[in-house]
Amino acid sequence: MQSDFGVIGLAVMGQNLALNIESKGFTVSVFNRTGSKTEEFYKRRAQGKRIVPAYTLEEFVASLKRPRKIMLMVKAGPAVDAMIDALLPLLEPGDIIIDGGNSHFADTDRRVRKVEEAGLHYLGTGVSGGEYGALHGPSIMPGGSREAYDTVAPILTVTAAQTKDGPCCTYLGPASAGHYVKMVHNGIEYGIMQIIAEAYDYMKRRLGMPVPEMQEAVAEWNAAELESYLFEITADILSRTDEKTGNPLVEMILDRAEQKGTGKWTSQSALDLGIPVPTITAAVDARALSSFKDLRVAAAERIREPRQPEKEDKAGLLAALRSGVYLAVIASYAQGMHLLQAASEEHGYNLNLAEVARIWKGGCIIRSVLLDPIQEAYTKDPKLVNLLLDGTFAALANEHLPGLRRTVSEAAAAGIPAPALSSALAYIDSWRTARLPANLIQAQRDYFGAHTYERIDEPGYHHTEWQDIQNVM
Amino acid sequence: MQSDFGVIGLAVMGQNLALNIESKGFTVSVFNRTGSKTEEFYKRRAQGKRIVPAYTLEEFVASLKRPRKIMLMVKAGPAVDAMIDALLPLLEPGDIIIDGGNSHFADTDRRVRKVEEAGLHYLGTGVSGGEYGALHGPSIMPGGSREAYDTVAPILTVTAAQTKDGPCCTYLGPASAGHYVKMVHNGIEYGIMQIIAEAYDYMKRRLGMPVPEMQEAVAEWNAAELESYLFEITADILSRTDEKTGNPLVEMILDRAEQKGTGKWTSQSALDLGIPVPTITAAVDARALSSFKDLRVAAAERIREPRQPEKEDKAGLLAALRSGVYLAVIASYAQGMHLLQAASEEHGYNLNLAEVARIWKGGCIIRSVLLDPIQEAYTKDPKLVNLLLDGTFAALANEHLPGLRRTVSEAAAAGIPAPALSSALAYIDSWRTARLPANLIQAQRDYFGAHTYERIDEPGYHHTEWQDIQNVM
Repeated sequence: MQSDFGVIGLAVMGQNLALNIESKGFTVSVFNRTGSKTEEFYKRRAQGKRIVPAYTLEEFVASLKRPRKIMLMVKAGPAVDAMIDALLPLLEPGDIIIDGGNSHFADTDRRVRKVEEAGLHYLGTGVSGGEYGALHGPSIMPGGSREAYDTVAPILTVTAAQTKDGPCCTYLGPASAGHYVKMVHNGIEYGIMQIIAEAYDYMKRRLGMPVPEMQEAVAEWNAAELESYLFEITADILSRTDEKTGNPLVEMILDRAEQKGTGKWTSQSALDLGIPVPTITAAVDARALSSFKDLRVAAAERIREPRQPEKEDKAGLLAALRSGVYLAVIASYAQGMHLLQAASEEHGYNLNLAEVARIWKGGCIIRSVLLDPIQEAYTKDPKLVNLLLDGTFAALANEHLPGLRRTVSEAAAAGIPAPALSSALAYIDSWRTARLPANLIQAQRDYFGAHTYERIDEPGYHHTEWQDIQNVM
Repeated sequence: MQSDFGVIGLAVMGQNLALNIESKGFTVSVFNRTGSKTEEFYKRRAQGKRIVPAYTLEEFVASLKRPRKIMLMVKAGPAVDAMIDALLPLLEPGDIIIDGGNSHFADTDRRVRKVEEAGLHYLGTGVSGGEYGALHGPSIMPGGSREAYDTVAPILTVTAAQTKDGPCCTYLGPASAGHYVKMVHNGIEYGIMQIIAEAYDYMKRRLGMPVPEMQEAVAEWNAAELESYLFEITADILSRTDEKTGNPLVEMILDRAEQKGTGKWTSQSALDLGIPVPTITAAVDARALSSFKDLRVAAAERIREPRQPEKEDKAGLLAALRSGVYLAVIASYAQGMHLLQAASEEHGYNLNLAEVARIWKGGCIIRSVLLDPIQEAYTKDPKLVNLLLDGTFAALANEHLPGLRRTVSEAAAAGIPAPALSSALAYIDSWRTARLPANLIQAQRDYFGAHTYERIDEPGYHHTEWQDIQNVM
């Protein structure tokens, strides 16, 4: 009997996804470049299950029902190209290759063309949820051939996380739509993680809260309006004790954050499309800045901390922080969704943003109760440019701006870096400013570069002879 | 008699550069795709000068002394490639093509290879100073072949702006070094322009200052520690009256800023190199956000302005603003120079950052008295990673942080968007924070992605089994 599905790449994510699919009643063939890993998986975690190990690609391909459905769970980059090149001669028209890694969307566009030229199908597919999600139900974001999606949908939709609103998997759009959506998902994730990190720093240094007290606060937030995966795991992290020292584990971890690229790609693509995602970029920059640990320690000796203000009105400050964090998280979603709306237009993805919000409600890292009103906003107005223009979110902005203002003000005064929180405030304040000072920038550009400017009272482009250049000589 | 130099492209910058070079005693051939422009230039501005008009490329090339020195002043992009393709068959080994436009550094790298393979030389050359600088002495930033540079140096160095520290032109490094430096120059320019725009907005809305009063303030700043081209022209702009309405001209200009790409490229390259340039990116984002004018007007109706605080202590607030603006401008330079240091390493430019600071002292848009201590800092320590680590700048940070803190706090409370000012503060505060909250981010990454973390008390990478995944099934 041939297998229903094939998985290539048996790192933890690949193993877990194979086990997940198998648990839904499918037979799954598995292959890994290093055969010993396949064998180990087969003998241990896959024991007694409908998992078929293959030790050559030929054997693997031969073990699959046609049209073959092969999911690549290999490291994004050249490994994906190498595997496609190795598979193409072995596959037949109609077979489907699914890239389940974090590939850059431009690579996916290139691969879609290549694989389709060979008469096969390609689905660039974001998978979010980490190891746990892969095993128990991730959020799956497929893009590419609609026909191919319909063929694999019966498997992917039951493999995905299930919510009251359906499975966290839907066809997103042609070409790289799936990987683009996953990239932006990760960008939003960067933003929220940085916001939480800043809140932790603020509670520690501005409010003088010991870790257990922070833990209580975050757990309380997560039990209410901030209910979400990232706040949930933060509360869990803050509850852990280091076995070696007895200190809170988080305090024993080095403050040098790493990153793999999807946050950076989000910022870069947003810059290309002219869509501001400042909170996401602030998060990427904050990780980069954290990496200069030794130099920061040196700078800290020369540049003084401000005198710390009194710890008065701690309850009020903490309430303001909670409110500010909530609104900054909203700003992260708003920026990501705005980028998706623009990318959908630019790249012809024809995204349904309500559906994007829906499939993020379960399984993935940015799942949150906030996705309910986000889904509603885009259901009501599929072409909504920015969440801040939606009535519900405008009301939330009005409600929570005072908290965000107070938190950013206090952090600035206290010397606590708040790049994500302050960028979120500047973002919302810019959006709600009918008259920004960009007129001065246009005057400057016309002054030194004769770039012209528009006027508020008549159409057309105008130029002022600021300097009498022509007649100087 | 053949010409010493050739200029292709007779838009204002090309015209002015040709006239500038001619005024230094050289004969200059000129060519423009549209011949009527050449003729008009020849008959009017070039009349009676050693300017030789050419109406075909063949004629143009034949009119030049060997090795030919040809400067392209055409629009960056495909026009540069087209002109190179048209020139190559006409030129001879040893001839030199100089691209004086704002080309992307990756394009320049590609063109250097192509032109050098043909046995010719290529100099990717940044030129800053706008129309006025092109005519009276710009800052010239050449990169590429050292040999070719030495050949054109006698012409370029007298054409450049002259300062007490020498001409604003020097060989910067191989390949795209010149265009990279110019790109970062423009990135810093974006940052400073946005800082000034925010200060103008703050003076208007927080301090209630009429334009003439702002003009006085900016002129006063420009007469002291903020002496620089951008503050100078801002004071001039604020002094102008609109002829049509009698209002200050700046107030009649539409608040929708445009951009051409160099700021965006700076941010994108910085993201690739992992160097935070948040103030530059905030400026790029602010321009992008300003473009959504109609939507901002709509959002302004739904999201309320905070109650404006009393106008008490205006003098103190204005002094704090001045101090904060000064430090934010320093942060813009610090970010740009840090990026240059990293790019020099990454791309093998071997930049002399003291020399970069020196040739920015005259002619260019970001010339400023601040470039004196910047040059000193990199003379003292050519490998200095960040200006904030230099004693002089650490002292300036200590002196001006209170003003920046107060300004960011007040802007946040008053609802005045200050993305560049607040990003500068967060940047400096991050640099002077020995212990950032990136430890929590590392914990989160290890939690959901098993990415591991480092500890503060022992080397190596560690992983915590946050969830018992393996045994769930």
